[in-house]
Amino acid sequence: MITREAIYHVPKGSYCYAYDENTMHIKLRTKKDDCDQVFLAYGDPYNWVTEEVDGKKENRWDKDEIPMEKVGTTQLYDYWFIAIQPERKRLRYGFLCKNATDCVFYGDNGIYEVENGQSADDTSEYIAFPYMNPVDIFQGPEWVKDTVWYQIFPERFCNGNKENDPEGALPWGSTEPTPNNFFGGDLEGIINKLDYLKDLGVTGVYFTPLFVSPSNHKYDTTDYMEIDPSFGTKEVLKKLIEEAHKRGIKVMLDAVYNHAGWTFGPWQDVLKNGEQSKYKDWFYINRFPLFPKGIDPFNLPAHGEGDYRDLGYDTFAYTPFMPKFNTENPEVRQYLLDVSTYYAKEFNIDAWRLDVANEISHDFWKDFRKAVKAVNPDLYIVGEVWHESSAWLRGDQFDSVMNYPLGNAIINFLAKGKIDAEEFGDRLVDQMHRYSENINEVMFNLLDSHDTPRLLTQCKNNKDTFKLAYVIQLSQMGSPCIYYGTEIGLDGEHDPGCRKCMIWDKEKQDRKIFKHMQTLLQLRKDYPAICRGSLHIMDTDAKKNVITYMKQYKGEKVYYLINNNSEKNTITLPQELVDQKVKDLYNGKDLSLDISLTLEAYGFKIIKL
Amino acid sequence: MITREAIYHVPKGSYCYAYDENTMHIKLRTKKDDCDQVFLAYGDPYNWVTEEVDGKKENRWDKDEIPMEKVGTTQLYDYWFIAIQPERKRLRYGFLCKNATDCVFYGDNGIYEVENGQSADDTSEYIAFPYMNPVDIFQGPEWVKDTVWYQIFPERFCNGNKENDPEGALPWGSTEPTPNNFFGGDLEGIINKLDYLKDLGVTGVYFTPLFVSPSNHKYDTTDYMEIDPSFGTKEVLKKLIEEAHKRGIKVMLDAVYNHAGWTFGPWQDVLKNGEQSKYKDWFYINRFPLFPKGIDPFNLPAHGEGDYRDLGYDTFAYTPFMPKFNTENPEVRQYLLDVSTYYAKEFNIDAWRLDVANEISHDFWKDFRKAVKAVNPDLYIVGEVWHESSAWLRGDQFDSVMNYPLGNAIINFLAKGKIDAEEFGDRLVDQMHRYSENINEVMFNLLDSHDTPRLLTQCKNNKDTFKLAYVIQLSQMGSPCIYYGTEIGLDGEHDPGCRKCMIWDKEKQDRKIFKHMQTLLQLRKDYPAICRGSLHIMDTDAKKNVITYMKQYKGEKVYYLINNNSEKNTITLPQELVDQKVKDLYNGKDLSLDISLTLEAYGFKIIKL
Repeated sequence: MITREAIYHVPKGSYCYAYDENTMHIKLRTKKDDCDQVFLAYGDPYNWVTEEVDGKKENRWDKDEIPMEKVGTTQLYDYWFIAIQPERKRLRYGFLCKNATDCVFYGDNGIYEVENGQSADDTSEYIAFPYMNPVDIFQGPEWVKDTVWYQIFPERFCNGNKENDPEGALPWGSTEPTPNNFFGGDLEGIINKLDYLKDLGVTGVYFTPLFVSPSNHKYDTTDYMEIDPSFGTKEVLKKLIEEAHKRGIKVMLDAVYNHAGWTFGPWQDVLKNGEQSKYKDWFYINRFPLFPKGIDPFNLPAHGEGDYRDLGYDTFAYTPFMPKFNTENPEVRQYLLDVSTYYAKEFNIDAWRLDVANEISHDFWKDFRKAVKAVNPDLYIVGEVWHESSAWLRGDQFDSVMNYPLGNAIINFLAKGKIDAEEFGDRLVDQMHRYSENINEVMFNLLDSHDTPRLLTQCKNNKDTFKLAYVIQLSQMGSPCIYYGTEIGLDGEHDPGCRKCMIWDKEKQDRKIFKHMQTLLQLRKDYPAICRGSLHIMDTDAKKNVITYMKQYKGEKVYYLINNNSEKNTITLPQELVDQKVKDLYNGKDLSLDISLTLEAYGFKIIKL
Repeated sequence: MITREAIYHVPKGSYCYAYDENTMHIKLRTKKDDCDQVFLAYGDPYNWVTEEVDGKKENRWDKDEIPMEKVGTTQLYDYWFIAIQPERKRLRYGFLCKNATDCVFYGDNGIYEVENGQSADDTSEYIAFPYMNPVDIFQGPEWVKDTVWYQIFPERFCNGNKENDPEGALPWGSTEPTPNNFFGGDLEGIINKLDYLKDLGVTGVYFTPLFVSPSNHKYDTTDYMEIDPSFGTKEVLKKLIEEAHKRGIKVMLDAVYNHAGWTFGPWQDVLKNGEQSKYKDWFYINRFPLFPKGIDPFNLPAHGEGDYRDLGYDTFAYTPFMPKFNTENPEVRQYLLDVSTYYAKEFNIDAWRLDVANEISHDFWKDFRKAVKAVNPDLYIVGEVWHESSAWLRGDQFDSVMNYPLGNAIINFLAKGKIDAEEFGDRLVDQMHRYSENINEVMFNLLDSHDTPRLLTQCKNNKDTFKLAYVIQLSQMGSPCIYYGTEIGLDGEHDPGCRKCMIWDKEKQDRKIFKHMQTLLQLRKDYPAICRGSLHIMDTDAKKNVITYMKQYKGEKVYYLINNNSEKNTITLPQELVDQKVKDLYNGKDLSLDISLTLEAYGFKIIKL
């Protein structure tokens, strides 16, 4: 019997959406192995035909049935998919789920028990996609689909100009990073290293904030309209962007709009003038005075000390130094939108990354999208959202989010051993169906960042699992990002450890890792199936901890064989590879296969027929 | 074993939403009888505590667990609910589902197997509601929650002025309605009957379109800025709205923005000037000439004749007379928004009903909402959407939709006998959980309209089931609507039959039905539990076809006992009613109960403790 309770679909979301102006994607999830077949029963809502039944004329809705394809399976679920092109951009549809002994229809009112394997007759039982209005169809920028990002924490990447070093800057790499020390990294340093980045193979750089701020991370902005003088000037930023563009490298800036910094002018005005401040509605003030008795706002204990749970205003987390913006205030909104369009217009930036994006209203982001896309429809918008993000990915807010869930799955599989190969395969499949395909194509995939321990450290400095993690990450659909220094083996614990100075002395760089990354990036360029292809899990073995999957794009197929095991493992090959002469893409050599292949401890193969 | 595949939740939708600025509602659906208990595991994402574990300091996320309440059950599902007030408007949460032998955690990555009944430790396993931004919180107009609507098809309600009758108007009620005949109903007639409506107990009138149009239904607009002269003038409409407001009656107009009428000026310009027309981008033109060879656009076959599937432009359904507006054209958008705000500003209307709302872009409706709510934040927006409508009810488009699914459930239960009492109870419960509670409170509930056969006809003129349908409909949360003439027993098949002239001769009216409706409307006013209360199914019996449910609001409880059976039936009373002295609200009499109660064929009781 088909488990009715497990049948899952959501109208007008990631389970039914317009992929482009002509094509609709429809999905259904059922309990694993419950259904032998699922049919889409569908028709144009206005297509009725008149038939003679027993000599009487009767109107009948003109519907068709077409089998859906099972495109993914986990330990719990089967995923069914179909792409169709409704002639007049309108559709009503339902699902006919069948196995040898049972049949059930799923439609607009949920489960509908059927006899004789027929779908419902009453059109009100069918789910509606009333009209594929072009303006509602999500389209990410085309260029993003082939871009590989490189995240730079500018204070720690390269010091290109000693003269703009902040007071007390330490010699490069002379000591471990702390929350408050400085090393003098700047924009000129980055310009000097653009050829290095091009050589590595990256095609986009994402900078953590560049605007004036007293901290080394600059997430506490003093002035959104100026570049921090220790990083450089607006002219240098313009030159950096021009030079990057010359090399085919896109540029993404970081927008910190959830909160201002302590030294932000309007906030300082509120501190000084209290209720009389004309900026008091720029923030969420709950009461004056803002601080409990005995706390002097002009002499606050340092970050991390003191209990700030009794503040008279809302903050980011419990950080008094980061007062939350009231983005419902039209003045604040206009100010932040002006900042956003200014850098898009005047600096020709290609993307905005939105800090703490999930705590700002959806309403604000809808305006933001309209404003920046009016300047440049190809501008890429990435929200910092760590969790399930459908509410921000409806086409009217972000193009993408920072895909930590994918990264966590890879880390839990390879670095932490929290999930086995079978569970990991499940996570990949579930992840693929979380969002629509047009979102997946521009998803911002990352394994670590300035906000997490570095991957190598999470791998307990095991360079084999570390490398394997990038084999997998760089084989996923979307727009992957590499955190600076990853390519030469930089390690580090959670902030501040993950913000070490980049190592430029080649002797101290791990050049094997560099070569590994370079090779993987080149493969992504050479084989569209790797970056654009759909993912098909071929086999997982929880005991051996091996997984085989295939990436497919327009007939091109690339196979990944992964051994997440400290022992070598023999993998039975998918039938289509048996006895084939194939190409080992990673080392570029030809390879003759028989029925199985042995992988070294933490070994892998990337194979093309 | 708990059926993992059946566990269902959607973040940031009808299963988790801000009900008001302080309160979050969270729901989970599980397979019926699978779980004995469901706990919400939750915490502020930034609340961490430091603990000593084996002499080592460890950071631990500070989470709590709290039991959820089972608030609804169907043959397939249990629904679990909790309302909580996160101190700082931020929350991460997951669900711990338990029965005597099994325990599973459901979070941001779906199922997470747990041991020892503990919820997950890793915050990334928890679903996020990052911040309850006030601007994103849906709020329907407060007045709607107590409003009962009366839908008027103006051409057929009352002829108050013979002088503005259209050419060829027939004597009132002298013949059956046809697609093309006229009887002269007008706005003055409606003014004359406002006291009648007040006496019936309605507090809102919804008019099908009033703007200039050649048809009797006026869904093919000639001029949005003028009132049809056969209905009256702008001055008469203003007077009508003033007089209605004096009587506490709100006014809703009908906005037909999906398509223009054939005689709409810009469309006529396109017909005349073809590609040279400056209005050609006002519509979705796919090619010129617009018509296949041999068809003369100035001499088209009548509606319903001829095959119009080969047109060079998009239309509503296959109706050549209704060319679809290109609402992506900024000129069109501005024009329609100007119309919308003009009537809101100048005529002080209280609501807009949006025709074929589901085929217009979401993007347009977002602008529409901003425009009309800027004029009047209390203006009520009802979209014509017949099916599942979550995509339009996210707080940024409509306040409500025409709730045909609820109406269909009642009709399928009482009029058509397609579902029994148990299935009907299921539909009520599912319906209640489709949308958020703040949407349900202002949902536009109806049983019939100008677009359906009349309820009495659907009931095959059985006045008992017809009355029962209104007992149920008028006991639901939301804003119910009564189609004109329902209250005096008007019947009629699908359009044009459902658009008969209203009967004003009291001798020919069914005054028993009038009294029934009047009584039910008065009860809705007297007992807030009826219109505002939450719904609790007490008992259903599929064989006897009886259902008992309770409505509860702030401690007030009202019980409904319904016998949908041509035989009388004895109903076992809920424990809390046994041996109680209660009030029979419908006849106003006291009643002493024992353990059961006998209801006549198609009988009912409305009881208050």
